[in-house]
Order: sequence, then C-alpha cells, then structure tokens
Amino acid sequence: MLTRFLIFISFVFTFSSIIAEDWTIDPERRSWVLSANHPSTDFPIQNLPYGVFKRKNSQETPRIGVAIGNQILDVKRCVQEGLLKNLPKETQLALMEPTLNAFMNLDKRQWKATRHSISGLLDESNPTIQDHQRLKRALLVDMRKADMLMPAEIGDYTDFYSSINHAQHIGKMFRPNNPLMPNYRHLPVGYHGRASSIVISGSDIRRPKGQVLAAGASAPQFQTSDKLDFELEVGVFIGKGTPLGEPIPIAEAKEHLFGIVLVNDWSARDIQKWEYQPLGPFNGKNFATSISPWVITFEALKPYKIPGPPRSHDDPEILAYLQPKDDAAYNIFLEVAISSEKMREQNEKSVVITRTNFSDMYWTFAQMLTHHTCGGCNFKAGDLIASGTVSGEKIDCLGCLVERGAFTKEPLRLPDGSRRKFLEDGDEITLRAFCKKPGYPRIGFGECCGVIKR
Amino acid sequence: MLTRFLIFISFVFTFSSIIAEDWTIDPERRSWVLSANHPSTDFPIQNLPYGVFKRKNSQETPRIGVAIGNQILDVKRCVQEGLLKNLPKETQLALMEPTLNAFMNLDKRQWKATRHSISGLLDESNPTIQDHQRLKRALLVDMRKADMLMPAEIGDYTDFYSSINHAQHIGKMFRPNNPLMPNYRHLPVGYHGRASSIVISGSDIRRPKGQVLAAGASAPQFQTSDKLDFELEVGVFIGKGTPLGEPIPIAEAKEHLFGIVLVNDWSARDIQKWEYQPLGPFNGKNFATSISPWVITFEALKPYKIPGPPRSHDDPEILAYLQPKDDAAYNIFLEVAISSEKMREQNEKSVVITRTNFSDMYWTFAQMLTHHTCGGCNFKAGDLIASGTVSGEKIDCLGCLVERGAFTKEPLRLPDGSRRKFLEDGDEITLRAFCKKPGYPRIGFGECCGVIKR
Repeated sequence: MLTRFLIFISFVFTFSSIIAEDWTIDPERRSWVLSANHPSTDFPIQNLPYGVFKRKNSQETPRIGVAIGNQILDVKRCVQEGLLKNLPKETQLALMEPTLNAFMNLDKRQWKATRHSISGLLDESNPTIQDHQRLKRALLVDMRKADMLMPAEIGDYTDFYSSINHAQHIGKMFRPNNPLMPNYRHLPVGYHGRASSIVISGSDIRRPKGQVLAAGASAPQFQTSDKLDFELEVGVFIGKGTPLGEPIPIAEAKEHLFGIVLVNDWSARDIQKWEYQPLGPFNGKNFATSISPWVITFEALKPYKIPGPPRSHDDPEILAYLQPKDDAAYNIFLEVAISSEKMREQNEKSVVITRTNFSDMYWTFAQMLTHHTCGGCNFKAGDLIASGTVSGEKIDCLGCLVERGAFTKEPLRLPDGSRRKFLEDGDEITLRAFCKKPGYPRIGFGECCGVIKR
Repeated sequence: MLTRFLIFISFVFTFSSIIAEDWTIDPERRSWVLSANHPSTDFPIQNLPYGVFKRKNSQETPRIGVAIGNQILDVKRCVQEGLLKNLPKETQLALMEPTLNAFMNLDKRQWKATRHSISGLLDESNPTIQDHQRLKRALLVDMRKADMLMPAEIGDYTDFYSSINHAQHIGKMFRPNNPLMPNYRHLPVGYHGRASSIVISGSDIRRPKGQVLAAGASAPQFQTSDKLDFELEVGVFIGKGTPLGEPIPIAEAKEHLFGIVLVNDWSARDIQKWEYQPLGPFNGKNFATSISPWVITFEALKPYKIPGPPRSHDDPEILAYLQPKDDAAYNIFLEVAISSEKMREQNEKSVVITRTNFSDMYWTFAQMLTHHTCGGCNFKAGDLIASGTVSGEKIDCLGCLVERGAFTKEPLRLPDGSRRKFLEDGDEITLRAFCKKPGYPRIGFGECCGVIKR
C-alpha cells in the first residue's frame, strides 16, 4: 500500500508543474536493480546518465538508454511499452530517436520530468518493471552485452583552455617570466575543434602521420608522430539550441547545458608544434578525440555544486557579461590511468598517473558558453564544448604528458621503472571521474578509454 | 529528325560508361532557355551549378535546383516527372532531398551522369520540356521568384590561409622583416571554423559585440565591434565522405571535391586582435560567414584549369605527399563591390574595390584536402573548406580592408571621396566571380552578399 502510494506521488510529481527539486537525488533512495545500490557503482539511482547503445550482435537500431548499476534501461522500449506515457508526446518521440539530439533540444522542464519518471520506474518501491519478468528481460540490458555509441550527433565542437594551471605550465615552456597571455584572465580562451573525428570511448586511436620539424633541421619531414599525448578534459553537451545573433546571458547559460562527459583530446605534440603558428592547433588534434559514453546530467550533479572559481586580489575584475550569477562550478574528482600492452598481457592493473579536480578551473561552462555566444554565434542541440586540459598545481595532478616533463630529463616514471615521455604503441589511457560528498552516494562518470595503434 | 538523333545520342552517352569528357562544356551548345544564351549571363548551359531553393511565399519543402540563365530548373520535380529515370535509383533519391548532401556523397560518375542528363534536357535541340507548356511552367522558376537556401548541411568547416600575398601582407604588420612563418611554404596552414554560423548570401550580418582592448588601455571593454572587415574567399564542398584514419592521397583528392562557392569570412578585427593568442581566431570570426548559393561543379570548371601554383627557386621543395599530380589550379576572376546605404538610396551602382584572381594561391584545394586528412581526419559529404583570403600583390587586388590600409592613414577611398577603414552600418559587400577564356562562354558564380546591421 505504501509502495502504491509512493508511485502515485511520483506520478503526481511528474504531472505537476511544481516538481520537488531534490526527490531524485535523495541519498536515501535505492533501486530494485541491486547493483545500483553497491557503494562502488558509478551509477546509483541518484545518477541516471543518458547514453546511446545497441545490444551486441543485434540488428537493432541505436537507442537511448539510462545507466543503472551494471545495467542499461532501454528507454526507447520503455516508451514503446507505455511506461512513459505520462510524458508529453514530444518528449516520448524524442526518447525514441537513435541519438540524444532531439531530447537535448527540449527544455529543461522536460528533461526534469523525464528524469523523474525514469527515477520512479527504477525505485525499489516501484513494482511496474521489477515484478514483471517479461518487462524486466526486455528493458534491462547487461552493460557487458551492449555496445555504447556516440550519444549525439555533434554539429560543432569547441575546445577551451580554462585551467589556469595548465595554461601556466604550458606558457612557462615558451615564456618563463610571463607564462599567461594578457587576455587569459579576462576571457575564456577557446578554439574551434573538429567534430567529425570525435569517437566513443573504446575506439582505437591511430597514431597520426604529419609534418614534423626535427630539432636542428631546416625543413620538415613527413612521418608518423612519435610525440603522442593525452589531454584530460571535461566536455558539456549543449541542450536547447539558439538562433544566430542571440547571445546567451550568463544568467540563462545553465538552461542550455544538458550534461557532461569525459573528453580525451589526443594531441600529437610534434605535429602541433610545427603547424600551430599563427592560427592554432589543427592536424595535431583533429585525428581523434574520445568521449565517455554516459552523459551525466546537471540534475544529478546538483549536490556537488560549489562556488565559482576562486579569484585572488591579483585577478582583474571580470566584465559584467561574464559575472557568474550563482554557484556554477562542480567538485568533480578526475583521474588518468595508463596500462601498457605488456602490463595487460601480464594481467597487471593499470596505474593511476594523475588525480586532479575540476573545481579549480579558472572559467566555468556557463562563462564559456556565454562568451562563445556574446557576438551572436549560434548553437545547436548536441554541440560539444570541452574545458581544455584539467591540471592541478602539483606533479601528480597534471592533465597531459607535456606538463609531466615529457620534454625534460625527468618524464613520468611508471612503477616498473620505465619512463613515459610520450605514449607508446599499445598504451591504453583511461580517464575516470566521480563526485562524492559526505552523506551522498558516489556518482561516477564511467570511463573514457583508448589504445594507441600504429 | 536531327534533333531526335541528338537526344538519342545524349541518352546513349548517359547510359554508356564511356562518357565523352567534353560534351557538356562544348562552347557551341545553346539552351532553349533563351536567357542562358546571353553573353553576360552567369549561367549558360555549360555551367549548370547546383543549389537549393524554395518558391517564394510557398509552403513547399526546399529542393535541389540547377541555374540556367535567369531561371532555376526544379530538379526534384524533374525526378518526379520521370525525366531523370535513366539515372540510377540512388541518384534519383538523392536529387529529391532538401539538401545536396546525399548527392554530394555519391561518386563522381554519378555526378557526371546527372550533369549529362540535365544538360541534355536543357539543350536547344531537346523538345521534352521546351515543347510542353505544363512541364515548362512546373519545372522552370524565375530566379526573382525563388529564395535560395543553404546548399548543404555543413558538418565541419575549415578555413585555410592559402594566399601567400595575404599571408605576407598580414605578416608584415607584425613582423616587417620576416612576414611568413617558417611553416608557410611547407604546408597549407588552416584552422577549424564554426559551421553553425555559415549563412546563405543575402542574410544580414549583425555587427558582433565582444571584448576589445583599446589602444593604450590596460583592460578590455565589452562593446560592439567597430573594426568589421570582409574577407574574399573561395570555398569547396567535399563530395564523397571518408572514414576516420584513411588519408586521401593527393592523386585522389579531386575525386572528393564536389564544387565551389564564394565565401565571405566576415571578421571583427578588434575582437580578433585581443582574443587570438595563443589558439587562433574565434569570436572574431564565428558570428557569421556568408556563402554564395550556387555550387559550381568541377566539370564546368574544366576548361579553366591551369597548372598548379607557381613556385620560385626560393621556395622549398614540397614534400611528396603534397606534390600535385596534375593541373589543379583554376583561373577564376574575383571581385568585391561595396555600396553604402546612402548609395543605394540614391540608386548609385556599387563600386568594385578589388579585382583579383584565384590562380595565384600558394596551395590548391587538392593539397588542402590531402594535408587535412594526412593524419587520418575524416570528412563527411557537405563539409566545407575555404581557401583563406584571396589577395593579389597590388593595392587594388586585396581581399580584405586590413590589407587595404585600414590601420594606416591611407585607407580605402570611395569615389565620393569618403574613406573606409572598416565597414559601416548599412554597407553591402558583394563578392562575384567568373571564368573566361577565348572561345569559351563566361561561367559566373552568382553573388555572395551581405549588409551590415547593428
């Protein structure tokens, strides 16, 4: 009886325009999908990230799913079974699509209503799926039996440079006394990246060929890059699109931010070094960029919101159009692990080489989006903005190998004593992220990984 | 009888795998669309560029058309009327789409067969349309009664910097003794641009706001740009897409080049100047880029092919992967005209301020595409590559106002005596291009225009 009452309440919540803010992130809630209640899972019922998947070895069309424990809830099938018929028709149609673009293009209230419905279906008190074997078998897919696909068709991709630690570390290599450009503390510096070569986690990364100027040489050679690096970044998918000529004020920016993923902005430093003047990175980056498959929503991240980036008295005042209106930073723990081919052959665990945090970025996603649109540039749902390499100050908090001393005599040392100036063939890089807070469950991002192939 | 024989022959040509190379560009041919035979037309029967249009004030879906004289042939309707049923089903379906992407993604033989069929239908000897009033009314649309739309959905947009004159003129402002970067003569320098803000000719251009550092100031202000410039460029639409990790060898590059348009890469110099270090142009460019609506095919341009860019004994040898395999440059005359709001009110003609030629670019489109993909970057049909500003050496051959002395005491002078450092509100910029050669008809590109609004 209590169970039925709770379900009734959840439907009332969904229908009602007054939706309790915190119901879906209530740390006490548990799911009838038991793996979602394990303290080490990335995907408790408080998370519910969206992705696009296909059952392995099936001919089915790609479909939207939600991660729960070690399972995926088939959202398309939920709509087909009538389990989401409380949602507006438009939302239901968007949830039947083979990418998240149409759903991202809805407004925030529809995202919220959908989250509430799905959260209700997965709640341990709700018998709808858990007590019906046929439904359960049709709707839940073991993650090991699914292939994850690109969550959205990415129209445009922009990469920023928002970690002041990263900018300072890189700048010091070129200008020891004056590492930051004069514009750095006034605007989020960014550049347009290549959208077509963004790939899903697990895709192999082919070491690119390109022009390289050897030390002391007067002319470049065409060769396979031997200075391949990773870059640990966080990316945000844009939700509702905007028309050309209409800037997004900072107070409204969060209405257009759908959710976040991990991004590995693979970089060929030798190609990049020779080509990048005067127009910026190009072939050194556009051979591949990996993203993690699960899009973590800002609803799920709410408990981990913190005040915007710290500013010291040295920092200039931020121009009014970029002044943050509320807490817009997130306390996200990030890590990078590496394993060589030999380590994997010998069943050795990968080694974590970087642990850092997203909270000390100099610019927030809201500031990046507002700056990006301040001249009128338009966005489409599914466009991606990446943060730039996330680095802390210390040696074990750095988001790429160049910062870790790749060009010095003291590059990264692995536990077996070997050194890694740059990535070697067979190396696998895995990015991970999670949020934690006393009294709250751990919210994980899943993984963004790739193996270097020649 | 002769007419029927000619039509029969044209069908044989189309069906046959041996297609006479030059039949559609035969300078003697004429169309029954009389305006196509006028020597001043941009669109004789030898041209036949593709575009996407919609009849004004109609509810019809956008459709593919071909320009002929002052008319548009409704290609979708041609398929519906069974006039292109000699083409493979796949081609016919592609020609029914609301953009050119699917057609661009076919292979070159299908482009050629389509051109032959359409050329045959428009030939003065062919009665199929010309002798049937209903068909003629249904298939031909007066250009003044149509709205031109974006020819393709552009996935990714890349802008190069391939005019050595432009690079030298700009470089001199920063480094008088050493204007070219060391990489310039070794590789086509390019950067990723913003695809979402590419607009069709005729769209108003909103003057962007952004951060600007005033001369002598220590901190930037947020203001409306007052240093707005045009950039005269030529763009190429990519045809058949390529998979990630598969470079396009220079000998195959032309198989992937569909056709070309005019591009105006509007630039806010004050915003650009403050933001561009170290990652390149961003908000200074991404507020709008205009393109002309008619995509001129390489089949039509064949008579105007010339040897690749000249190289002097000072120039380094080009690396093997970029060595041109055949003539790959095109003799295209380009011009820029300006009219102020006042001039238009007084019915004065616009003033041509630049006349230049595409043939003295340092890099060809084939080289740009091959370099762009040499590390494995993939392309989708409908992606756009622009050449960068096209400038000659002399004062009246420059592709933007900055080169024309905008920052000096001798900026551009208009016939009424007024000066133009940068564009003013109400200014209309029109780019035009054409090919000509003794014994051949003039092939025009139509116009790429935009008016500056505040």
